[in-house]
Amino acid sequence: MAPVSPIIAPPEQYPGERLDDLQRQGLRILQHPEDFRFGTDAVLLAHFAGIRPRDRGIDLGTGSGILPLLLSAREPTATFDAVELLPHMAERAARSVALNGLSERIRVYGMDLRDAPGALGHGCYDLLVCNPPYARKEASLPNPHPGRATARHEGETVLADVARASAALLRNGGRGAFVFPAQRMLELTGALSLEKLEPKRVQLVHSRYGSAPHLVLVEAVRNAGKQLHWLPPLFLADDTGAPTPALRAIYEEGT
Amino acid sequence: MAPVSPIIAPPEQYPGERLDDLQRQGLRILQHPEDFRFGTDAVLLAHFAGIRPRDRGIDLGTGSGILPLLLSAREPTATFDAVELLPHMAERAARSVALNGLSERIRVYGMDLRDAPGALGHGCYDLLVCNPPYARKEASLPNPHPGRATARHEGETVLADVARASAALLRNGGRGAFVFPAQRMLELTGALSLEKLEPKRVQLVHSRYGSAPHLVLVEAVRNAGKQLHWLPPLFLADDTGAPTPALRAIYEEGT
Repeated sequence: MAPVSPIIAPPEQYPGERLDDLQRQGLRILQHPEDFRFGTDAVLLAHFAGIRPRDRGIDLGTGSGILPLLLSAREPTATFDAVELLPHMAERAARSVALNGLSERIRVYGMDLRDAPGALGHGCYDLLVCNPPYARKEASLPNPHPGRATARHEGETVLADVARASAALLRNGGRGAFVFPAQRMLELTGALSLEKLEPKRVQLVHSRYGSAPHLVLVEAVRNAGKQLHWLPPLFLADDTGAPTPALRAIYEEGT
Repeated sequence: MAPVSPIIAPPEQYPGERLDDLQRQGLRILQHPEDFRFGTDAVLLAHFAGIRPRDRGIDLGTGSGILPLLLSAREPTATFDAVELLPHMAERAARSVALNGLSERIRVYGMDLRDAPGALGHGCYDLLVCNPPYARKEASLPNPHPGRATARHEGETVLADVARASAALLRNGGRGAFVFPAQRMLELTGALSLEKLEPKRVQLVHSRYGSAPHLVLVEAVRNAGKQLHWLPPLFLADDTGAPTPALRAIYEEGT
């Protein structure tokens, strides 16, 4: 295994950055208006992921670092590695971690997720989370802002790479949790199954009561059986457009 | 192609059989209490299937004949072939068809669905419907009543056979509509994709508002693209257990 070091970053805010309050145990996060910022999908994934005491977790493509920050608040005995391809995003995530005093529990690495198993170890993780890029390579024009483009498009990263790295990183029985557009659910589950990451827990997310789902949350387990366990649908807004009690409970979790 | 003849049956009710009113355009159906009887899943599939004028349709494993009967009421210019492995079920379905005066539009064949492409033609059908057997081969004890066992268990029939026959029977761009347990959705969609029947329209069915889904309705199109079109969830009962307006509308369709 090649030697690899987490990013050591000062607990600082740089010019042009925002420091947002996550409204959860005093957590704050640095974001830059010109880079990709986390959305509801990350908050839903952090809630959906089944984290357990003393879990060793990893986030592939951490971006702002939102997922390990939220998960660390859910389970104070868990530790996380977070991998991010873009150096300036990785460095900012490491500063967010430092600002929250979590550098002992969350380590950020600037690397391609395909290199993560070789650098961080095979079969070492209990839990993996990933909010993979959404648009297909050929689907639309590349985003002119490189920080946004990597998060929204499958530039270098494709689903097959995500699945392969996830399968290599998780221990047997380890859990990988993913959020993806509902209309592409079968591409995600197919890529995972090919790597023996069998989809188990599944939940569809609907923007409103009675609307078609737009997101799917999938938990896959390494070398598990084929039966799905569907959760009830998650509706984000009611008929008037107001947030549902279910969504409010997710946002207020652990506050 | 081997010569093959539809079952010619008298429009008669035999001792021990029930003649049920389908509450739709005067349609009636023969069923026997000791054989597999159609359920809500068949009614939902008949509603879900996208039938069009002058469609040539086929039902694999027609059982009582419920699907071609309901579909013939939805689209009076469509014709159907219906395939059933068990000779006594096929013969009874043919008598139901005769009782309704539909022998010109619905032909019932007693055959294994695996033999259907060879006997009835490759790539000739616009629409295929199938309510495949639910339990896995190894999942439970075989049903002592052979008429029920074939409909509930994958005895001789397995998903791969259903998918292979469906792909062979449908024309390019033809649509196959299936109902299956939600927890086994990925087995169904995986089997269909292997045969280039790409799942397109998908709807989950929930027994109650806010419950996890128990059935999935899938329309797959031969040689289509990979994007899913999710329909809103279908709830069968409200919080009090009363049928939802959506379910009532399905049952009252065309009455």
